Amino acid sequence: MAKKLTLREEDYSQWYNELVQSADLAENSGVRGCMVIKPYGFAIWEKMQAELDRMFKETGHENAYFPLFIPKSYFSKEASHVDGFAKECAVVTHYRLKNSEDGNEIVVDPSAKLEEELIVRPTSETIIWDTYRKWIQSYRDLPILVNQWANVVRWEMRTRLFLRTTEFLWQEGHTAHSTKQEAIDETKQMVNIYAKFAEDFMAMPVVIGTKTESERFAGALETYCIESLMQDGKALQAGTSHFLGQNFAKAFDVKFATKEGKQEYVWATSWGVSTRLMGALIMTHSDDAGLVLPPKLAPYQVVIVPIYKGEEQLNTVSESALKVKKELESLGVSVKFDNRDTHKPGWKFAEYELKGVPIRLALGNRDLENGTIEVARRDTMEKETFQISDIGNKVVHLLDKIQENLYTKANTFREERTYTANNYDEFKKYIKMGGFVYAHWDGYSETEEKIKEETKATIRCVPSDSLEEEGVCIFSGNKSERKVLFAKSY
Amino acid sequence: MAKKLTLREEDYSQWYNELVQSADLAENSGVRGCMVIKPYGFAIWEKMQAELDRMFKETGHENAYFPLFIPKSYFSKEASHVDGFAKECAVVTHYRLKNSEDGNEIVVDPSAKLEEELIVRPTSETIIWDTYRKWIQSYRDLPILVNQWANVVRWEMRTRLFLRTTEFLWQEGHTAHSTKQEAIDETKQMVNIYAKFAEDFMAMPVVIGTKTESERFAGALETYCIESLMQDGKALQAGTSHFLGQNFAKAFDVKFATKEGKQEYVWATSWGVSTRLMGALIMTHSDDAGLVLPPKLAPYQVVIVPIYKGEEQLNTVSESALKVKKELESLGVSVKFDNRDTHKPGWKFAEYELKGVPIRLALGNRDLENGTIEVARRDTMEKETFQISDIGNKVVHLLDKIQENLYTKANTFREERTYTANNYDEFKKYIKMGGFVYAHWDGYSETEEKIKEETKATIRCVPSDSLEEEGVCIFSGNKSERKVLFAKSY
Repeated sequence: MAKKLTLREEDYSQWYNELVQSADLAENSGVRGCMVIKPYGFAIWEKMQAELDRMFKETGHENAYFPLFIPKSYFSKEASHVDGFAKECAVVTHYRLKNSEDGNEIVVDPSAKLEEELIVRPTSETIIWDTYRKWIQSYRDLPILVNQWANVVRWEMRTRLFLRTTEFLWQEGHTAHSTKQEAIDETKQMVNIYAKFAEDFMAMPVVIGTKTESERFAGALETYCIESLMQDGKALQAGTSHFLGQNFAKAFDVKFATKEGKQEYVWATSWGVSTRLMGALIMTHSDDAGLVLPPKLAPYQVVIVPIYKGEEQLNTVSESALKVKKELESLGVSVKFDNRDTHKPGWKFAEYELKGVPIRLALGNRDLENGTIEVARRDTMEKETFQISDIGNKVVHLLDKIQENLYTKANTFREERTYTANNYDEFKKYIKMGGFVYAHWDGYSETEEKIKEETKATIRCVPSDSLEEEGVCIFSGNKSERKVLFAKSY
Repeated sequence: MAKKLTLREEDYSQWYNELVQSADLAENSGVRGCMVIKPYGFAIWEKMQAELDRMFKETGHENAYFPLFIPKSYFSKEASHVDGFAKECAVVTHYRLKNSEDGNEIVVDPSAKLEEELIVRPTSETIIWDTYRKWIQSYRDLPILVNQWANVVRWEMRTRLFLRTTEFLWQEGHTAHSTKQEAIDETKQMVNIYAKFAEDFMAMPVVIGTKTESERFAGALETYCIESLMQDGKALQAGTSHFLGQNFAKAFDVKFATKEGKQEYVWATSWGVSTRLMGALIMTHSDDAGLVLPPKLAPYQVVIVPIYKGEEQLNTVSESALKVKKELESLGVSVKFDNRDTHKPGWKFAEYELKGVPIRLALGNRDLENGTIEVARRDTMEKETFQISDIGNKVVHLLDKIQENLYTKANTFREERTYTANNYDEFKKYIKMGGFVYAHWDGYSETEEKIKEETKATIRCVPSDSLEEEGVCIFSGNKSERKVLFAKSY
């Protein structure tokens, strides 16, 4: 166990960095901006993947795999896409190294220069739509509902573990449809799946909405997103779903024959979430003692720590602990029994607090005599003593309660930090305090830009549930039709 | 449904290429040597992944993720490794593109040249051992049992779908141990897991053995492998497990404090299988009508095709078909009900034969009247009529029988094509016929090399179950201690 974490109120950003590393989630690598996801962090990501993958498949999607490399010329085919994605990227120019003439090092072989440079994919619309051209001839070939789990690279100048890294892991769905309406429905369906995943599994409340033009995905006609509020009052975009219209079909000449025999361009969507969700999860629930995990995403939901003196006591305690473990596992609870003799119970307690294990059970000789077991909740840090005979039901019930409590807590926090600004002074005050701020906006990108310059706040989204109401823009005084959601963001 | 496949005996290689593409497994992409794995092919790979991942976790391994890019200098640290891996590779030299001066295209920005080139990982020993240095201080930190599912790139000049592609998907296990014996045991454990997976799930018999020095992994002291025999008499290396000694620990200075407080270098293993297994699976079982899948790896084990005229009949037939589907699913069988009205039953029959679905059920009006259902096995192409009331048990039993039959068939084929050569003439004859050839070899790399030059056969492995026996090398006449396994190979 490392030293204590920096307190959140002292330095939130420092707290985050320390937590990610000391809870064994991830660390920086020898490659600038690229992270190593450590086994414990990866186990959480695997849980996320499993649930999302199930939700995608239940809605008819299949997985596939497309090349890591994209020829440079592909990016030029969709005009707005190239500006958004093809600039800060990893460029492969050669395919061979050789020994230097003095034999002391290896160098790039200049004779092995590629005719056309390859870009390490920052997102795969171009290579996928180049492929779909071969897959789609007729309406019978539609819809195509494909998802890919992959690594992508965007050359970021300032990186932070999980939140912004040069390489990250994600899933990207790419679907093709015969009608505009079907594509729009798919776009909405997927943002709703993301919202459901965030709320039900991550215990993280989100606002669903659409991006303004300036924040839209490069190449999209409409971008839906989920936005959540972190503990420091900043917003985090946790997932996006794009209605791409016929832009990529036109760029890559993907047409289909309708039932009536006409040739039409195909309609497209794409949608994705990434390892950024790990950052969102951490910053939604964790505290000064370390990570706090919702039970549904915890690699192990319960840890059992034996308290003993000497081998004989360890044997007696272990016997009971293993019975408890077996009972819990039969109820579908994942359990770790930490019987390492290299570390003391106190050390282990701190370690599992840091790692956010939802429930810690401690079992010692005195407990055995009394038929009891000590139960500690990570979310509230409360301890209770349960009858060991009843431990199965109690733990299952408690896990549900913890999951619920984390959501409620995060939701209460968000409500407390959600403001409505009626004028620009109020707006600036709330933004400075940190939180979600609803305010009227006149719909102009220039206004949005100026507000950003002056306050660093951006429009996170036009919430899908926002009501049409007459008002005036807090900045320009122009007419406004609805309030939109502002915040500073990650 | 495309036209019929080229027959295997006409052109095995052409048959393979056509099958992979027309069964919707994979296809070439617009990027030289990189494949697109299509949804149906990827679903088989996912089944493989799930079983392997379970086997890894049951033996205590955890997944993690390491960077895609490796600084060039890392490769130079392990002398033999650099020659084996750092030569034919994708080299990232720049991190930005920009608009050309005439504004007509995007070009590499010369001002964005990396100080040190990055290599797209061909394998991850170097970056992982650079990381392990930070993870390992004491014997308490050992063993580290980590696996990674990832994409890797090796710049291959001649590529073939699944068998040899520039980018491919794989898993690579990288473990660290405090003793030599523990590392050797791990190496053997993992090759045995690969063998078990190949035999129990892929229904593919394998020979377990060790590689000769010249075929060993660059940086390994011993390479274990599994070798299988394809239908054209060529061998395919399906998985490898390497005992790396202390080579990488020394190259990356990874030491640990023993219980006694001494500093020692850590012992290492690495092991991997890749999407190459897809090629092995195809070439072990498939026939001139298309893919043949073992039930344990089939995306759907049963397809139900309704036979009907008009909507009314379709409704009646569908009702029964959905009942059958539900019953089968309740028994753990995966089922697809293909009620598309865009294709005729005959077309569907050919399609699912091509795609290797183990069992096809056909259900028509006449069947309903008789209470029967038509059952067709893909492996033997036999058809039978079953009572619909008994379909659940029959199908479950039949799936087991198919899985077993595929293994037996492949094993019989291998036995028939395994020879023992007592002299070089016999050896050349058998190699020409195609198959596994056991023969005495004197242990010299020069001999191995000459045999390869003259016959194109290589030593696939020194089988782990080979007996020590006195003999003379078929090529040199020198003394030999055991027979080794030769074959031409993929």
